[in-house]
Amino acid sequence: MHSFQELIAQFEQQFSQWQFPGEPATLYEPAGYILGIGGKRIRPVLTLMGNELFDELHPDSFQVGNAIELFHNFSLIHDDIMDKAPLRRGMPTVHVKYNESTALLAGDVMLIYVYQFLNKVQQRYQQKLIAVFNKAAIEVCEGQQLDMDFEKKDPAQVQYADYVHMIGLKTSVLLASSLQLGAIIGGGSEGHQAHLYEFGKNIGIAFQIQDDYLDAFGDPEKFGKQVGGDILVNKKTFLLLKALEMCNGVQQQELRRLLTYTGHDKVDRTLQVFHDCKVDEWAQQEKERYTQQAFNHLEAIAVVSGRKKALLEVADFLLHRQH
Amino acid sequence: MHSFQELIAQFEQQFSQWQFPGEPATLYEPAGYILGIGGKRIRPVLTLMGNELFDELHPDSFQVGNAIELFHNFSLIHDDIMDKAPLRRGMPTVHVKYNESTALLAGDVMLIYVYQFLNKVQQRYQQKLIAVFNKAAIEVCEGQQLDMDFEKKDPAQVQYADYVHMIGLKTSVLLASSLQLGAIIGGGSEGHQAHLYEFGKNIGIAFQIQDDYLDAFGDPEKFGKQVGGDILVNKKTFLLLKALEMCNGVQQQELRRLLTYTGHDKVDRTLQVFHDCKVDEWAQQEKERYTQQAFNHLEAIAVVSGRKKALLEVADFLLHRQH
Repeated sequence: MHSFQELIAQFEQQFSQWQFPGEPATLYEPAGYILGIGGKRIRPVLTLMGNELFDELHPDSFQVGNAIELFHNFSLIHDDIMDKAPLRRGMPTVHVKYNESTALLAGDVMLIYVYQFLNKVQQRYQQKLIAVFNKAAIEVCEGQQLDMDFEKKDPAQVQYADYVHMIGLKTSVLLASSLQLGAIIGGGSEGHQAHLYEFGKNIGIAFQIQDDYLDAFGDPEKFGKQVGGDILVNKKTFLLLKALEMCNGVQQQELRRLLTYTGHDKVDRTLQVFHDCKVDEWAQQEKERYTQQAFNHLEAIAVVSGRKKALLEVADFLLHRQH
Repeated sequence: MHSFQELIAQFEQQFSQWQFPGEPATLYEPAGYILGIGGKRIRPVLTLMGNELFDELHPDSFQVGNAIELFHNFSLIHDDIMDKAPLRRGMPTVHVKYNESTALLAGDVMLIYVYQFLNKVQQRYQQKLIAVFNKAAIEVCEGQQLDMDFEKKDPAQVQYADYVHMIGLKTSVLLASSLQLGAIIGGGSEGHQAHLYEFGKNIGIAFQIQDDYLDAFGDPEKFGKQVGGDILVNKKTFLLLKALEMCNGVQQQELRRLLTYTGHDKVDRTLQVFHDCKVDEWAQQEKERYTQQAFNHLEAIAVVSGRKKALLEVADFLLHRQH
């Protein structure tokens, strides 16, 4: 059994030894660039943990971890093109540093390399691994499309339940599947795999609620980026969509006015409405509810509790950070 | 044994029954759109032929054929974004009909569905099939990148041998691999697989030489599109690059002048240089040489000649068309 930090170090050590081919450098250098600018490697480490929950670490978990980390970075490159994002992890995005065509193609070839890794695992569970991975990969694409569709809509037109569905696809299913893939390699039963998947999915949603909460109510000194950034760009968040549902008629009018308002006190006035309709309290409770659901699923997995230690560490890392 | 036409009909019949999911329609309708606007389904039919060269048609060849056809269409969507192409098969390209972000994402999800099909084949050859397919898929991306790199260069800077390498990756390896994948399913030996691959690769290059030749010297009535289109946009073709290598100093000066010339007789004057330095004759010989190499490889495959009939039909279809 390894701790969260030990698994990060083990994964990073082997992943950093792998490289794309040298030629054509115009294709593979941009692909290597995004892998080199960091990232916490949370998803592949979840695969290692899913494996270790049931059995000793198997080399296949590293292959699958590499596949997941490549897929995650592929989706970042392409999302950044779609979102016209200038920065990623504080560095220029791939399409800004190189160009859009190269970023598009580097993402494509990275997605093919995902399956190079998935093609190295033992045959006895290969089809199952690819099936579970593909389901998540397809859902991530569907989530990105739904997110783009929502972007075009007025916030009042977006149903809160639809938003939870979208954010689950976009941010949680890959976390959930990363765990499940490890459980398959470790020999966990179908039932245990399902519980572990739900643990990951609920942690992912709790994380997203907290992310939205901190953007609005975080301590500026600890948060590290501008508090209220989501409010300034009218981003559809858990807080905004739920506030529109919870608040009374007067508050609703104020909130809708604030969406087109650009004055210097836009953030403060929006936070005041959030506070008045108690969506801040609701968010804390909702995060707690998803966290509790996650732990119930983890609880249902019948292995000695020592085996769950690393998973509790990663949940703590994701859910108790202030930045 | 089935004829080329019978195999096209069989493939099209089952392929048209398959559909992407209905939701999100904003993602899957664009993906379905490009599949619906035609295409000759040459590549998947080559897989069926590769199978039938050695054994009765196996359902796995249709799964692999579906994967290859999806991959081909994925690459068309993304190439059209990169090339800013307005039309594909006479219809608006996906990024023009919808938008670039949706086209990018529809291509991505299509590439994941490729592996949904590759995950349905028998386990005994699944890893081999994915390995052969991935090699080709990676090479197609590398070919596209090299093509974009060449686009930025002066034609005189592009070595003819490098161009042949690029065009082989971009247009021939997928034809070659489609055949090999069928041969694997049909139980052909490694040696026979290699010959069949080379048959496809050489036919592909011969086809490309002919395509360049017809664009310059084709019969306008039969060709169906503007003769000289490549010359008008200074496209790097077999003819231009070889002419720059073959012609004498005076012709070379004229050809280089013509690359920046925009007068109404640009095409006629360029064709005159091509004719003077006999690059038209060279192209015919070169096409013949690659065709002969292809047939030598087919010859080397020890099966009764009746089994090769469909492959000869498809070669004839690809190499003797005038349009």
